[in-house]
Amino acid sequence: MSDRYLGFANSNLGRRLVDALGLPRPAALERWQAGRMRPVDGALLLGGGPLIARVEGFAKRLSDELYGFETAELQAPSWVAGLGNKVEAVVFDASHLSDSDQLRQLREFFQPLLRSLAPCAHVVILGRPPEQLDDPQASIAQRALEGFSRSLAKELRNGATAQLLYVGADAEDQLEGALRFFLSPKSAFISGQVLRLQACAAQVQDWSRPLAGRRALVTGAARGIGASIAETLARDGAELVLLDVPGASKDLEALAARLGARTLALDICAADAPEQLLDALPEGVDIVVHNAGITRDKTLANMTPDYWDAVLAVNLKAPQRLTQALLDSGRLGADARIVLLASVSGIAGNRGQTNYAASKAGLIGLAQAWAPLLAAQGASINAVAPGFIETHMTAAMPVGLREAGRRLSSLGQGGKPQDVAEAVAWLSQPGSGAVSGQALRVCGQALMGA
Amino acid sequence: MSDRYLGFANSNLGRRLVDALGLPRPAALERWQAGRMRPVDGALLLGGGPLIARVEGFAKRLSDELYGFETAELQAPSWVAGLGNKVEAVVFDASHLSDSDQLRQLREFFQPLLRSLAPCAHVVILGRPPEQLDDPQASIAQRALEGFSRSLAKELRNGATAQLLYVGADAEDQLEGALRFFLSPKSAFISGQVLRLQACAAQVQDWSRPLAGRRALVTGAARGIGASIAETLARDGAELVLLDVPGASKDLEALAARLGARTLALDICAADAPEQLLDALPEGVDIVVHNAGITRDKTLANMTPDYWDAVLAVNLKAPQRLTQALLDSGRLGADARIVLLASVSGIAGNRGQTNYAASKAGLIGLAQAWAPLLAAQGASINAVAPGFIETHMTAAMPVGLREAGRRLSSLGQGGKPQDVAEAVAWLSQPGSGAVSGQALRVCGQALMGA
Repeated sequence: MSDRYLGFANSNLGRRLVDALGLPRPAALERWQAGRMRPVDGALLLGGGPLIARVEGFAKRLSDELYGFETAELQAPSWVAGLGNKVEAVVFDASHLSDSDQLRQLREFFQPLLRSLAPCAHVVILGRPPEQLDDPQASIAQRALEGFSRSLAKELRNGATAQLLYVGADAEDQLEGALRFFLSPKSAFISGQVLRLQACAAQVQDWSRPLAGRRALVTGAARGIGASIAETLARDGAELVLLDVPGASKDLEALAARLGARTLALDICAADAPEQLLDALPEGVDIVVHNAGITRDKTLANMTPDYWDAVLAVNLKAPQRLTQALLDSGRLGADARIVLLASVSGIAGNRGQTNYAASKAGLIGLAQAWAPLLAAQGASINAVAPGFIETHMTAAMPVGLREAGRRLSSLGQGGKPQDVAEAVAWLSQPGSGAVSGQALRVCGQALMGA
Repeated sequence: MSDRYLGFANSNLGRRLVDALGLPRPAALERWQAGRMRPVDGALLLGGGPLIARVEGFAKRLSDELYGFETAELQAPSWVAGLGNKVEAVVFDASHLSDSDQLRQLREFFQPLLRSLAPCAHVVILGRPPEQLDDPQASIAQRALEGFSRSLAKELRNGATAQLLYVGADAEDQLEGALRFFLSPKSAFISGQVLRLQACAAQVQDWSRPLAGRRALVTGAARGIGASIAETLARDGAELVLLDVPGASKDLEALAARLGARTLALDICAADAPEQLLDALPEGVDIVVHNAGITRDKTLANMTPDYWDAVLAVNLKAPQRLTQALLDSGRLGADARIVLLASVSGIAGNRGQTNYAASKAGLIGLAQAWAPLLAAQGASINAVAPGFIETHMTAAMPVGLREAGRRLSSLGQGGKPQDVAEAVAWLSQPGSGAVSGQALRVCGQALMGA
């Protein structure tokens, strides 16, 4: 479960040896620690267009060290002189860039700034959804931001990340929740991603316990990523029902006791699984995390019917049936949040995983197909697509595959279960209805061959 | 410009050495040769759902050796027994799969078939666009095909490829053009891709000269990929106007003389470039290929204003201005076809290419923004996104980067300018209005880190 090379390369001796040999030195990523208060522990720099005024309204809740620059000031090359080497977080609003000439403001802002970024700094670029703009010139300029931000993410070093948020015209009041996530260590293993924000009526009431008063169901919760999701949702204030197969009851009960959660021992593929689930949730549920999943890897040439059927049944059919039952029974609360655990294999495919990749692509399709259906009741549904995450499963991989999985990404390492859990917890917040029908990769900007 | 390892690994001695050492042996890809008549030179296998009946209507024009199987026949494991090791092309219609249980038909069809595929075989899976289906279950099953087909593409060996075509309900009459491309060596370097077909009123009249009677403009045509595009459009019957900067006139004139084309020496960034272009095209133009492009690579930390501005001006602003001028002047013919040369860097970003990736992402945005505007007059606009293509430019790369670019893909090698040119030529056909607003990667299913 540990990346020994990462630890070695960041030790005193290892650092010198690794640098002398010209080997990669992946950064030790900063993660969110329980009890931390502010999303940004240091300087937050705001620059660019008109959305910055919206960000300034809540920026003091993000960081107590703020720097703001208007576009005109950025013309003077001296503007970064006072920053030193300590900028922890950056928001650049590029939403006003309305033709390809104006894109040069990206260079003007970021070029002098890059040397002032602290290790594990987080950069967010704001734009407008290109498909919502009437002016083709503006739409093209906004679409160009994707190429820029993904390149920037590949150039950043020392664990820094960059994302692009396309903010719908009616979504500006949901910026705080998104920036609290993407500017903080909660998004440590996410980089180079593009997400769209839309209108959402719900709001987080208490940022220290954003899930307070919300009932959450987590499947496959006994171990690994599922257990980490349970812990993270509990930390954020949710009341939990933890589900896993009867064979995992011992681990499940221990975790539930620690978190003050209820448990449900259930095979989600059982014929009566929907009825059993509804019986266990008489008061309904606000957050549903379909995390339970299995792998049965074989190349298609050797794929057996039982391997195929088992993976599709657990990973895709069960979430469909259970979600349908919850919806039909009226058990899904107002502003419900549904999160499906997909995989980068579902996006890019993977050798030896035709069954798994089909099931995970199907989950992304489930989010896309259901998002419009759920929007009427203020509910959202999204997929989270982990890349290489250090678990018992990856620890059992052949060493070559494991090292390739770790290093073939912009962050040069695997992620941790917590990284996936933080993404799930963010998408479970009331305000995260601003995101729906989308797939968020938690993969360190992995090279994935889509 | 040559991949010496590829040649060595496929030589008599090299093959034995490479296999003994456990090194990768990328396949020698079969390409389309001038004078070839049939898209499929050997057995074409058709199977699956109702769209196969549509394919059978023209299948004899694709191959003179046809095998067809209905779904029921596929239950018998013996159905592949007669095929031997000689299947050159496969079409499986998965459009009827309407829930996750039915996805097992994919395994039933492909599992026994894989051993019968000839080297450089081409597989096409047909589906329905998930976003056009009312039934969520069907939409999810169709979306799952992406994960399956991309995994299959990664598992295929010996230069074989696999694609997924989502066929709109009103696009069935355009299947022949798409299958002539994706089942033939014209698509040798394309794999793991997903494309949507929509209604298109225009049709190819003569498959041996699909661009006969069409006037085409190619920018950056003097050398490299541009010259290959010119040659390929000429082979397919187009009348050509070849454009390049005045400094490239010698190469341009030589190529034009060989192809019987006109030339236009023009800096596309000049203030009067639109007027000069319109003057040179008094009779209008049916096909516009914006191929001219430059790189000025530097990391953003070292990016100069002139490097940024030059790349954005040539790669993005010039195509916008020239296309706008053609449209405004009425010079774009009925059923015009516009093709923009983008890049996988524009999709996934690339270290050292913030400027280039922004410009190429902008071109993808140009295709997306303009497609609806052009649809009214039957015109289409698409981007082609090459991956690692063997040119003078890549020959000058550092050896480590070049080898990584070649090998980090499912086909394990770089492509050739012809591979890009064939994609452009296909999208330039009258019937290819079935594709619009999309980006087609020609990259051997490269690992690209989007």
